[in-house]
Amino acid sequence: MRLNDTIVALATPSGAGAIAVIRVSGPKAIEIVAPIFSSKANKDLREQPTHTLHLGNIIDDARIIDEALISVFHGPKSYTGEHTIEVSCHGSQYIQQEIIQLLIRKGCRSAEAGEFTLRAFLNGKMDLSQAEAVADLISSENAASHQMAMQQMRGGFSNEIQKLRQELLNFASLIELELDFAEEDVEFANRDEFENLVTRIQQVLKKLIDSFAVGNVLKNGIPVAIVGEPNVGKSTLLNALLNEERAIVSDIAGTTRDSIEDEMSIGGIGFRFIDTAGIRETEDIIEGLGIKKTFEKISQAQVVIYLLSADKLGHTVPIDIGIDSASQELETLKPVQGEAVLIKNIQVELQKIHNQFPQKPLLIIVNKVDTLKTEDQEKLQQELEEISRSVEKSQYLLLSAKTGLGVEELKQKLLQFVNTGELRNNNTIVTNSRHYNALLSALEEINKVQQGLNDNLSGDLMAIDIRQALYHFGEITGEITNDDLLGNIFANFCIGK
Amino acid sequence: MRLNDTIVALATPSGAGAIAVIRVSGPKAIEIVAPIFSSKANKDLREQPTHTLHLGNIIDDARIIDEALISVFHGPKSYTGEHTIEVSCHGSQYIQQEIIQLLIRKGCRSAEAGEFTLRAFLNGKMDLSQAEAVADLISSENAASHQMAMQQMRGGFSNEIQKLRQELLNFASLIELELDFAEEDVEFANRDEFENLVTRIQQVLKKLIDSFAVGNVLKNGIPVAIVGEPNVGKSTLLNALLNEERAIVSDIAGTTRDSIEDEMSIGGIGFRFIDTAGIRETEDIIEGLGIKKTFEKISQAQVVIYLLSADKLGHTVPIDIGIDSASQELETLKPVQGEAVLIKNIQVELQKIHNQFPQKPLLIIVNKVDTLKTEDQEKLQQELEEISRSVEKSQYLLLSAKTGLGVEELKQKLLQFVNTGELRNNNTIVTNSRHYNALLSALEEINKVQQGLNDNLSGDLMAIDIRQALYHFGEITGEITNDDLLGNIFANFCIGK
Repeated sequence: MRLNDTIVALATPSGAGAIAVIRVSGPKAIEIVAPIFSSKANKDLREQPTHTLHLGNIIDDARIIDEALISVFHGPKSYTGEHTIEVSCHGSQYIQQEIIQLLIRKGCRSAEAGEFTLRAFLNGKMDLSQAEAVADLISSENAASHQMAMQQMRGGFSNEIQKLRQELLNFASLIELELDFAEEDVEFANRDEFENLVTRIQQVLKKLIDSFAVGNVLKNGIPVAIVGEPNVGKSTLLNALLNEERAIVSDIAGTTRDSIEDEMSIGGIGFRFIDTAGIRETEDIIEGLGIKKTFEKISQAQVVIYLLSADKLGHTVPIDIGIDSASQELETLKPVQGEAVLIKNIQVELQKIHNQFPQKPLLIIVNKVDTLKTEDQEKLQQELEEISRSVEKSQYLLLSAKTGLGVEELKQKLLQFVNTGELRNNNTIVTNSRHYNALLSALEEINKVQQGLNDNLSGDLMAIDIRQALYHFGEITGEITNDDLLGNIFANFCIGK
Repeated sequence: MRLNDTIVALATPSGAGAIAVIRVSGPKAIEIVAPIFSSKANKDLREQPTHTLHLGNIIDDARIIDEALISVFHGPKSYTGEHTIEVSCHGSQYIQQEIIQLLIRKGCRSAEAGEFTLRAFLNGKMDLSQAEAVADLISSENAASHQMAMQQMRGGFSNEIQKLRQELLNFASLIELELDFAEEDVEFANRDEFENLVTRIQQVLKKLIDSFAVGNVLKNGIPVAIVGEPNVGKSTLLNALLNEERAIVSDIAGTTRDSIEDEMSIGGIGFRFIDTAGIRETEDIIEGLGIKKTFEKISQAQVVIYLLSADKLGHTVPIDIGIDSASQELETLKPVQGEAVLIKNIQVELQKIHNQFPQKPLLIIVNKVDTLKTEDQEKLQQELEEISRSVEKSQYLLLSAKTGLGVEELKQKLLQFVNTGELRNNNTIVTNSRHYNALLSALEEINKVQQGLNDNLSGDLMAIDIRQALYHFGEITGEITNDDLLGNIFANFCIGK
């Protein structure tokens, strides 16, 4: 961990844009930039106050590389806590490279991933969990993950841990003090108060540990499995959901979305839609494998959507036409005049999913209801009503991606399935598996402490367990750390942050 | 052209990065940002001096969107000449969108492409040719195009035009003054001096017009045609050229190169390599078409590389082995013991290219010379020497992409073929076809003026031609302009600039 040199990196995304920002941080940041900057106002950067902006040219001897705007920050009043210069130049990749190369020639070192934030941590500008939140913040793609990262970066999580740590530390000191007076058999640490504290710490830890399930899911997107035959309109469904969201962002310049088909943000929450092949009953071995795979995918999901297409239901196939080979999948849906439109098989399948995953909400969606006559719609509704009553945890929804019917309702239902209570109540949510593991370890040690209290364990033995719990708290905030750990954490950052 | 509203756009490339910069410009820039910014130091942005930086939170009522750094610029001391705020926030796309949307809700308008620079032009911060240079600068990919754009942006070109325009304007005034005193038959404008000026203007215009050929090529990359059969090692050759260049940029973080195979920068100059199929003599109609295409491609090139592979020359094929069908292309190179290694055909082809394009330099390159024995290399060299003596404008080069032999020499030769004299001498180079056309029109008018002087044309008629020439000068710098023209120019900018 070298802190005595000056680092440089591009801080804005690579590629051409109107402007690019190159960040320089370290003891010689201002010294290095000053001679290659020719200020319009003939000012020497070394004499400028902190938090000021200066227009001029970046020069390599006589050659002008670019007109640039320089931001001057004096340590410790900067992001890293060190002297920092930000060079805002024209966004050509050629210019970016030329300036970075010039700075390297003049004595800067190319920064490694996350090195600016690592320096901020090492210089005490933020604790480790806050530093980790910076990376989460940059990669946040929806309101929920953004809110969780912001809360963590602003110290919400650290504060909670710090408070517990401080209280525990006080008791540890008292108990260790007792050891010095061991022969006098005094109790500086009130055992009742201590037991109270231990119980409180257990509760907080359990709450934080439980929040990880929610946090992890919110951070990575709620997985939703879509069970349905091909051609029942999965992509139409996803597009219908997406279109409204898209309309919101469409007037923002430069907004592009990649791989939109299976990840999207609804009401600020990320959802991941997992396509499955369906679970139609079969004796075919190959198809049997397909069913097994579908069940595997469902097991990863929090919500299951069972998707049907109204134009493939029994009654839309004219009675007098036989089922041709191209629509073999309709065989089990073969229409029989006078019989129920949705045949038993669907109910059997739903029941099978429910039996396998009794906790997962099941949402039956019939898409393309606009293709049905009104009377058929009513009949369909009756049947769905019956099915959803007979299969536990199931609900149904009529939808038309074309007319927009049911799309809003679907969003509301999806959001209902998500446990956003903790998010809404602004509770601290653990999203980082490193923190989660440290919390688990801390709880284990605290449980040992409690056991020790019950067993009237001697202070010296109990002190060891307390120290261990304190150690795990310290791991989260970075008071306890080592180079390997820091290396691992900051390697996941982007360069320039 | 609305100037009375406040515009906003992302100024950094889209995508996730360490930081992103959102630019706000217009009369209400500071007013709009101040209420959504909560300064760490409890400062009101409205009371801050220009060119200062402020850390705080971007807030939407109670909700904190991000911690951000705000740059304050008071008009006219800003890029656009208007009040400007730059918000430097965390580089998540979600955060970028949230802040831009918030600013739009608070009264900003989404900026159109190039609108910040358009405002800078309309507010007199730069003339039109300088504004156009900004777009060139951002898209510049090598030293040459960068230097030309920088020179233009810094006003080199405009100054030259302005000086001519001013002198011409003075004479125009004098001639028009004569018209007021027409009955007295005076001459305020000395005809000899005027003729001198016109000659001088003609010379400068011609020089500028001529520079367009160089400028255009330098801006878009020198086209080099590679003539050679498949498998003679075209990509090896290009990689050999590229590898050294790549080494230079490899330690710059985030540097990526797209479509590297046919465009690269050598010694700061862009080169475009054009692959051709070769022009082997044939009676096959299909192959005949291929030759026609090769000639078309050569006609677009400034330099022709004729590429051979040493391991496909006659003497590397063992004498006792017949030519199999897979190496049919070797048929014309069939080795005959004791005969010259490079058979006549090559010389014929080279001569054919030279006859067709007598001005184009021809560079014969034999790749993979490391596969030859020393004695064969010497023999090869002798033969190449002979050929290059017999075919005008041809040179030769032995190269081994593997050992690096000849790669540096190839670069030097390529650079010699480029007319970089004007670039080296820091002359003004015209790169913009709009300017080129305006210069052509101006020259046409100036020629008419000269004709008028020769014919002793009356002052009132001459004044019309002078005004026309002045008009075309004004088109370049933007003194003469219209909304359509500006719309066209700035539509080619990226958003945020």
